[in-house]
Amino acid sequence: MVPKGFFPRACTLLPLLMATIGAQGTKTNAPTSIGIVVFPGYEPLDIWGPLELFSSISRTKDIELSIIGHEIGLVTTKPPPRAVDPVTGLPPPTGARVATQILATHSFANAPPLDILLIPGGLGNRVLEERNDTGVEDFIAARYPQLKYLLSVCTGAVSIANSGVLKGKKATSNKASWKWVVTHGKNVTWVPSARWVVDGNIWTSSGVAAGMDMVYAFLSHYYSNDMAAVNEMINLIEYAPHEDPHWDPFAIVHKVPGADPNGSLVDCVKPGGY
Amino acid sequence: MVPKGFFPRACTLLPLLMATIGAQGTKTNAPTSIGIVVFPGYEPLDIWGPLELFSSISRTKDIELSIIGHEIGLVTTKPPPRAVDPVTGLPPPTGARVATQILATHSFANAPPLDILLIPGGLGNRVLEERNDTGVEDFIAARYPQLKYLLSVCTGAVSIANSGVLKGKKATSNKASWKWVVTHGKNVTWVPSARWVVDGNIWTSSGVAAGMDMVYAFLSHYYSNDMAAVNEMINLIEYAPHEDPHWDPFAIVHKVPGADPNGSLVDCVKPGGY
Repeated sequence: MVPKGFFPRACTLLPLLMATIGAQGTKTNAPTSIGIVVFPGYEPLDIWGPLELFSSISRTKDIELSIIGHEIGLVTTKPPPRAVDPVTGLPPPTGARVATQILATHSFANAPPLDILLIPGGLGNRVLEERNDTGVEDFIAARYPQLKYLLSVCTGAVSIANSGVLKGKKATSNKASWKWVVTHGKNVTWVPSARWVVDGNIWTSSGVAAGMDMVYAFLSHYYSNDMAAVNEMINLIEYAPHEDPHWDPFAIVHKVPGADPNGSLVDCVKPGGY
Repeated sequence: MVPKGFFPRACTLLPLLMATIGAQGTKTNAPTSIGIVVFPGYEPLDIWGPLELFSSISRTKDIELSIIGHEIGLVTTKPPPRAVDPVTGLPPPTGARVATQILATHSFANAPPLDILLIPGGLGNRVLEERNDTGVEDFIAARYPQLKYLLSVCTGAVSIANSGVLKGKKATSNKASWKWVVTHGKNVTWVPSARWVVDGNIWTSSGVAAGMDMVYAFLSHYYSNDMAAVNEMINLIEYAPHEDPHWDPFAIVHKVPGADPNGSLVDCVKPGGY
């Protein structure tokens, strides 16, 4: 990728150009390097939904995967203890009482070159903020110039906003945490009714399960010259994707300020390609 | 639970009775113990979809979780190498080229008492069969009498069939592997068009993403006295569940023999409780 200072607009133009011709329009046979960030208290389906799609399409597409944490090793879905609320004097809810552990194969320090980086949300995001831990957003800021695409699910958009790369861009996030989300980022246009938003090479989705819909749309874009493979994959995993990025009943359910009150609560879905 | 030989029909009647009054109709405050089996080459979303729902509802419900493998330790989503096809002389497809690792917290030998046991599918199932590894089905057979409920996603139904507990029962499985699935189990009624099937206390779902729909229905049953909590959970994770167990467009897509050819490819979904 072009160094950041070289052509000031290149980092915006080059991905747009690639998006126009299709990201796989190059003749290179290099595998696509996908990185997924994890931190204690990440929301499971934020990564595992997309991971199922990436994993499944890797049967036929050349993909390399890195699970990237503060350090190499096990990372739990359980958030660390949270700071006491200064107003109530009580600790806030700690979320799920059960937890599982995934192996982070890389750290922020040693992650390989990446084409695609995905950032999950989860209650752990709030703990990072409470502890002034900027590891995730520093990693995003450092890597963004070399990425082809940056993706987030749920409150992962907060990390992206904090990194600064969302400046002047549109994004969305999960709707139950909306009031907290929109306090982040400078000059970010937070879109209150959206299953997912695309601005340049940054794709941000609404909460949790919305990540799967966004990634189906993303893979339809990334492998646009092979929709048969994308649809074969989504039908193999028997997921009927939501294909309208504007469909967002959860903005209504969670009473997001500015949500489209006339938006449909219902979406009719079917197998991919049908 | 009643010992297996004591009342010969009790193991069938008692769960049915409990199902009738609602599993949480007891006054006990004991947590619900959920076990999820893993093996090399399990399909990620088979467990992570249900795990997201179990995890989320554990914010308000008392749940304990065990991830159970052949041994305690890391378990990969990558199947071990497969046997060479005797006809072609070639190894069959190895599935996804990328893998992640989850920590199994327990083994078949030391897993705690369980109320609910969930069995995933995945290509790893075929490898277990090729290697005559009966660990999963032996565990199912041993634990079934003490379970309140047994669940499977995708080809996890094959393990359940092999354990013998499906004898005389109805079940379904994923549709892309249907021809292989139905060669398993004695006196099993394999239902070709079904998102999921319930027979007694055994719930079996179609492929991968169908597990989430089945578990939403299951939790609606298990916590039937608190549907508000179940719907709050599903809306928090922004998943609009498929609520009709008969909807199965993938049986049509994958040309399953006996599938209902007039079944709808389309299902219209919305937030829980709306």
